[in-house]
Amino acid sequence: MAFFQSPPELGNTYDDDPLLQSFLARELPAEVLTEIQPELREMGELSGGELYRLKLADRLEEPVFTPFDPWGNRIDHIALTPLWERAKRLAAEKGLVATAYERRHGRFSRLHQLALVHLFEPSSDVYSCPLAMTDGAARTLLSSGNAALVVHAVPRLTSRDPAHMWTSGQWMTERTGGSDVGLSETVAKRDGDVWRLHGTKWFTSAASSEMTLTLARPEGNGPGGAGLALFYLETRDAAGRPNALTVNRLKDKLGTRKLPTGEIDLQGTLALPVAGLDGGVRAITPLLNVTRLWNSVAAVAGMRRAAMLARSYAARRVAFGGPLSGKPLHEETLRDVEAVTAGAFLLTFRVAALLGKSEANEIGEDEALLLRVLTPLAKLLTARQAVAVASEVLESFGGAGYVEDTGLPVLLRDAQVLPIWEGTTNVLSLDLLRALSGKDL
Amino acid sequence: MAFFQSPPELGNTYDDDPLLQSFLARELPAEVLTEIQPELREMGELSGGELYRLKLADRLEEPVFTPFDPWGNRIDHIALTPLWERAKRLAAEKGLVATAYERRHGRFSRLHQLALVHLFEPSSDVYSCPLAMTDGAARTLLSSGNAALVVHAVPRLTSRDPAHMWTSGQWMTERTGGSDVGLSETVAKRDGDVWRLHGTKWFTSAASSEMTLTLARPEGNGPGGAGLALFYLETRDAAGRPNALTVNRLKDKLGTRKLPTGEIDLQGTLALPVAGLDGGVRAITPLLNVTRLWNSVAAVAGMRRAAMLARSYAARRVAFGGPLSGKPLHEETLRDVEAVTAGAFLLTFRVAALLGKSEANEIGEDEALLLRVLTPLAKLLTARQAVAVASEVLESFGGAGYVEDTGLPVLLRDAQVLPIWEGTTNVLSLDLLRALSGKDL
Amino acid sequence: MAFFQSPPELGNTYDDDPLLQSFLARELPAEVLTEIQPELREMGELSGGELYRLKLADRLEEPVFTPFDPWGNRIDHIALTPLWERAKRLAAEKGLVATAYERRHGRFSRLHQLALVHLFEPSSDVYSCPLAMTDGAARTLLSSGNAALVVHAVPRLTSRDPAHMWTSGQWMTERTGGSDVGLSETVAKRDGDVWRLHGTKWFTSAASSEMTLTLARPEGNGPGGAGLALFYLETRDAAGRPNALTVNRLKDKLGTRKLPTGEIDLQGTLALPVAGLDGGVRAITPLLNVTRLWNSVAAVAGMRRAAMLARSYAARRVAFGGPLSGKPLHEETLRDVEAVTAGAFLLTFRVAALLGKSEANEIGEDEALLLRVLTPLAKLLTARQAVAVASEVLESFGGAGYVEDTGLPVLLRDAQVLPIWEGTTNVLSLDLLRALSGKDL
Amino acid sequence: MAFFQSPPELGNTYDDDPLLQSFLARELPAEVLTEIQPELREMGELSGGELYRLKLADRLEEPVFTPFDPWGNRIDHIALTPLWERAKRLAAEKGLVATAYERRHGRFSRLHQLALVHLFEPSSDVYSCPLAMTDGAARTLLSSGNAALVVHAVPRLTSRDPAHMWTSGQWMTERTGGSDVGLSETVAKRDGDVWRLHGTKWFTSAASSEMTLTLARPEGNGPGGAGLALFYLETRDAAGRPNALTVNRLKDKLGTRKLPTGEIDLQGTLALPVAGLDGGVRAITPLLNVTRLWNSVAAVAGMRRAAMLARSYAARRVAFGGPLSGKPLHEETLRDVEAVTAGAFLLTFRVAALLGKSEANEIGEDEALLLRVLTPLAKLLTARQAVAVASEVLESFGGAGYVEDTGLPVLLRDAQVLPIWEGTTNVLSLDLLRALSGKDL
Repeated sequence: MAFFQSPPELGNTYDDDPLLQSFLARELPAEVLTEIQPELREMGELSGGELYRLKLADRLEEPVFTPFDPWGNRIDHIALTPLWERAKRLAAEKGLVATAYERRHGRFSRLHQLALVHLFEPSSDVYSCPLAMTDGAARTLLSSGNAALVVHAVPRLTSRDPAHMWTSGQWMTERTGGSDVGLSETVAKRDGDVWRLHGTKWFTSAASSEMTLTLARPEGNGPGGAGLALFYLETRDAAGRPNALTVNRLKDKLGTRKLPTGEIDLQGTLALPVAGLDGGVRAITPLLNVTRLWNSVAAVAGMRRAAMLARSYAARRVAFGGPLSGKPLHEETLRDVEAVTAGAFLLTFRVAALLGKSEANEIGEDEALLLRVLTPLAKLLTARQAVAVASEVLESFGGAGYVEDTGLPVLLRDAQVLPIWEGTTNVLSLDLLRALSGKDL
Repeated sequence: MAFFQSPPELGNTYDDDPLLQSFLARELPAEVLTEIQPELREMGELSGGELYRLKLADRLEEPVFTPFDPWGNRIDHIALTPLWERAKRLAAEKGLVATAYERRHGRFSRLHQLALVHLFEPSSDVYSCPLAMTDGAARTLLSSGNAALVVHAVPRLTSRDPAHMWTSGQWMTERTGGSDVGLSETVAKRDGDVWRLHGTKWFTSAASSEMTLTLARPEGNGPGGAGLALFYLETRDAAGRPNALTVNRLKDKLGTRKLPTGEIDLQGTLALPVAGLDGGVRAITPLLNVTRLWNSVAAVAGMRRAAMLARSYAARRVAFGGPLSGKPLHEETLRDVEAVTAGAFLLTFRVAALLGKSEANEIGEDEALLLRVLTPLAKLLTARQAVAVASEVLESFGGAGYVEDTGLPVLLRDAQVLPIWEGTTNVLSLDLLRALSGKDL
Repeated sequence: MAFFQSPPELGNTYDDDPLLQSFLARELPAEVLTEIQPELREMGELSGGELYRLKLADRLEEPVFTPFDPWGNRIDHIALTPLWERAKRLAAEKGLVATAYERRHGRFSRLHQLALVHLFEPSSDVYSCPLAMTDGAARTLLSSGNAALVVHAVPRLTSRDPAHMWTSGQWMTERTGGSDVGLSETVAKRDGDVWRLHGTKWFTSAASSEMTLTLARPEGNGPGGAGLALFYLETRDAAGRPNALTVNRLKDKLGTRKLPTGEIDLQGTLALPVAGLDGGVRAITPLLNVTRLWNSVAAVAGMRRAAMLARSYAARRVAFGGPLSGKPLHEETLRDVEAVTAGAFLLTFRVAALLGKSEANEIGEDEALLLRVLTPLAKLLTARQAVAVASEVLESFGGAGYVEDTGLPVLLRDAQVLPIWEGTTNVLSLDLLRALSGKDL
Repeated sequence: MAFFQSPPELGNTYDDDPLLQSFLARELPAEVLTEIQPELREMGELSGGELYRLKLADRLEEPVFTPFDPWGNRIDHIALTPLWERAKRLAAEKGLVATAYERRHGRFSRLHQLALVHLFEPSSDVYSCPLAMTDGAARTLLSSGNAALVVHAVPRLTSRDPAHMWTSGQWMTERTGGSDVGLSETVAKRDGDVWRLHGTKWFTSAASSEMTLTLARPEGNGPGGAGLALFYLETRDAAGRPNALTVNRLKDKLGTRKLPTGEIDLQGTLALPVAGLDGGVRAITPLLNVTRLWNSVAAVAGMRRAAMLARSYAARRVAFGGPLSGKPLHEETLRDVEAVTAGAFLLTFRVAALLGKSEANEIGEDEALLLRVLTPLAKLLTARQAVAVASEVLESFGGAGYVEDTGLPVLLRDAQVLPIWEGTTNVLSLDLLRALSGKDL
């Protein structure tokens, strides 16, 4: 009888995560934990069960971009994968954005929300990306003081009704660059009461979002970041037609392949200023703080998933007379992975706790500084760790870690976006120095 | 006028590699260097020019596996990519294996050969893999003392005639494992004067090779590695029909996607013992020493390529008022990459020099020990470095490093095979300890 | 404002089919028509609405065949397209097979059933094919007198519960041929109480079916058709593992691409004789009579759909000062198409009426002869007409008829299977002659 | 020993075509035949040998359209298939256009040319299409009296040097229609000495051509065909950049899939009037006469190829005790196919002979009328015959005729373009009536 290796398996990823459990037990009042634990357990069940199986079955599906219909009409249709369709419904129903804004548990609401995200993320095929931007957009609109947009869009972004909920994009990067956003070439022209944008956005995560925040330079403004304004736009009009924009193509990326990242041409796209006609870079800062924290959560969640799979496999794989988990060197490798993961988790959820306090207006001055400093620090650190851990875990599977249908290589491919998106290590290092020097506070 | 970033460019990769040049100037007698420099310069020109352009143009091509012809005959045809077809011809003509066996420059022949490989590798879409195994097979047959096979196969493996040259596979890994090869399930049954193999080989690099070396357990032998024998087989008969074997499928790998790695069923495959009816694991050791060195060369060559591209891009990409190459943090990142690359190069080519001496019978006892120890050490170290460097370089390109059509992500995808193939870090660590303890000498 | 052509549209395809309505009004007692009309109208609504839209949206989906799981287990998994999954449920719920066996309306039950099929078929992506074979298998088992199999399988084949319903394959063709089935090479070996089949079936429509009928030669039987027996087998065991058979590949066909047609190797497949150990060709005749009638219905339904689309387009497309529908030559073309379709419909549903009578044991001797003669005649005639009509209709759309995303070319690609499957024109001509000569009655 | 069917085979398709040989022997002076026969034989050898094998091997290759380079530049690159690259070189070297213009054999030159095309076409994957348009463009430019364009472009179109030869497109069809070209929406705006075209061409065969002829309405002209002018444009400038046009997408066609047919947006495309600022429909008539004759030749050549394959297969396929070729019904089917083919051949080459006379100014008035009448008649008749013959031949192969990797279904898919391109049956019927009524002479 020929030998066949049994694959790694996942159980309920909440029940199997003592670190998460002990952290929450320490941080949350008992009654809060009691109240939210069923949600966490349910999400752990989904993530280790149905969603994980769907992710494996869905492996070869990718979003399909159709620029034209059969009769020549420009439609720029993007069909999402089955898992993304499922994740979209779940994200609304489970309140993966809403929880932070409903604030049922006051300053603990960010811990509540991001614990759910931590469980959801690694079985979601990076659906966390549009959610991060949606969260960031809601925070930014609320911070902007633009009452009309707050009333119009925030209820959509924070809805629990899949039919009503919107996700938001975040279109900043142009061909001139993502880090030095001051080089942006997009121009905003006044057209009566509204504005029309002209330019090309070079990386638009979630080209399928219903709205987006973006930067453009109102005609007549000076060069550099100071002359940019923050704009709000909806990607389609009420009839579903593109808002004077075309998707040139979807990016052919190393990872996050279920996420339709587009290159988008703005050809007179109708848009509204969010917070005045300049200072856009400053106005979008709340978004970046939120998305960078999500980036850290995604890094931690990915490491945790990789560690769980490696641990499961080590118990099932036999070599030299026993399971790998009994080999000292292999055991040391796994413990290294787990230790790095634990450190990253604790740092990231410290930032989450601080953000929750800040949003509940219960933060002191020192903690506010700490939040400011730890946000980029956690992002840059955990992102790099996520790549290293993914590579290490792939190696721990031997050849199986290099073969796509095991579902393992995607761990590395998806991780590599983390040190790039929303600020590379060097860019964030400079931001950190700026924060420490007190220059931008 | 809209801005478009100019891409990184390569020149002659020999002329642009002062480290390689200074190393060779130091190691080689002047007349040897003078004699081989035109070959190196020509290879540098190909690698930075024609082959690099072809690699970019060839990006979406993959080997196509056709198990059956239209009329139902099992054919297991594997069509290679255009770059692989070109690389196959070049490899013969430029003597990428032959150089080490012709030994025109005595103990310097390995340096000669592997300097060529160093230049060729990063524009070859991992054609280095079949060449490494071919080199290893030639070395193993020569070490085996099997005169009939030496006469029959070695001239093919070391030929400079593309029409005559064979490549060899190396089929060791089974579903039971690659590291603990003693668990192998393949059985060899005597059939008159020949042997017939029955089993499944789970990772067969270069399923398109004309011959292979493999392990099987002659009927009646005991379990474990001791009961395995080393066999030689040709994949097709004189009429081009499969030798009682079928390719179940090609592996869907993270990287090295131009390399057709197969799962192969042996269904009575005709084979010949290479060196007796047991002791196969020991008999294949010469192959592993050669392929591990090639692995180090590939790691170094990949890092060198990544560094060159990053350096070129940094000079062309402008942010915050000047090229990236003028930013202190970016510069530090590049220098780190280059320093790691240089160290890896020097270690690897030290091993190459020692192997050359050994093959020329000019090695002393201490140096032989050093060769034994450094071979696994260089492999395990450089493989990990190659992954880290590739990840760092991708990040240094920002979003462009995450988009496949720039040709950058393949650097990481291809690098990740290096710590897995021919012994993971932990397996080689144990091998190193064994060597240091003197137990297997 | 640039011009964009509006596409052809469908309404309720029952309401828009006066020929079907008038025929049924003439053939059916009023109370029967009253009772079944809601079902027909509902199916017409589905076919012109939801299913048609899904068929267009589903255009690029194809069944995905996965021979091995990631860990090397042979699984031969075939994932169906979304429309097929929907059609499978609908077919059970709407009783597309069951209606003929429940016989709620006595001898009118075949008209009832096939009117539903006529409406369903052209929006089903040829899901009619497994249903035809399922119907034929139920008829064949009932005719066989094999009580055990009747009790075991017929309730599955005629179920209205999607979770319970089985479809059947029909595996006759081998590499030696489909027409001269007597050349079949498949051998049946007795293994205790059961039989084991060895051979290769070359065209197995609906490789995804739960059971099949097939021919094999019991060991010791003579050559030719006389030595073949009819066997029943289930494709998987209770645990879902393949029944000692492998799918070599799916056919890469001109059309019917949603239908997974396989080449299947029988490697000791467990099977049961249906009706003795010879005479298999005769025993399978009931199946062929049913599937040939389905073939005629599919031909007619396809022509009707093509005609509807052409008519709709002609009313919307303007050239030379008015809609195409006002141009005499174009009008003549459409009327030709419709006349051919009407003739084919009347012939085919005459056969359906006769089959209904026969199954209700209300058929006279002359009508039985007529049924025997008209079955192959209708099949051969309508199949050819279907190809000619599809080609004519494509031409009537001009260039749009040659472009796949309009959903038009599939009409021709799917039609071309009709004169080939279940007997080519020449084979059926000979069958017809045999019938007329009285030789096989 | 299991049975495997041997596939149909081709020999030298000139040697195996007695109809072509006898026709040429009758029509050509002996010395002409002697002179050209080696070319014909060589082309027959290529067509039945190397090109046919390449066509089968090339089956899955399709042109690849890349709208943007990795850095965002619009490039609209179209990579051709290997067979097309080969056909492009051959077409120049063998003078498949040039022969008609060099007129080495006076009025027999069209027979000479089109006999070569007849042999070349069925192994060329429809490379005949760009050649037909190139021939038509050369004829049109010569007829136009535009000396500058004749000097500039005709030597390119009729070159025998692959590096120098251009092919031409023919861009007439817009979304408004192909038959009623008077509805064209493309506008030509004067820009100093040149013109700029704005509009969308909906079917542009051979989007990869170097030049094209097209229709546009100079600003200020009236509606309808009378207001259109014929323009010449080159698709790229001297630096290889698109001439202010973008390829929106390649058509996803039923057949002719190696031919990159595009939808092209003209966005100020630089163009020159060929023959004044109106009367474009009349000015392009010479092109249509040439391409319609090529369409007939392609129809005949396709039928001839289909018949050859069917004949070869019938001799090799055994059923009911003997080869199919011995079965009366099958034999009758093949003879019908061959008879239709022969009639179509004779009609088509009659037109070719007349065109040759006309171009040599050796045609009488009656023959000129005959040429005028037979050109559309041959086109409409042979195109329909080609579809019917392809369908019949597919059926004659049974299931093998429905499976793409046999290379058979492409016969039908490619044939179906013939009644659509360059005038459907109805459009040509009206043209024929117009000719017979003497109205447009």
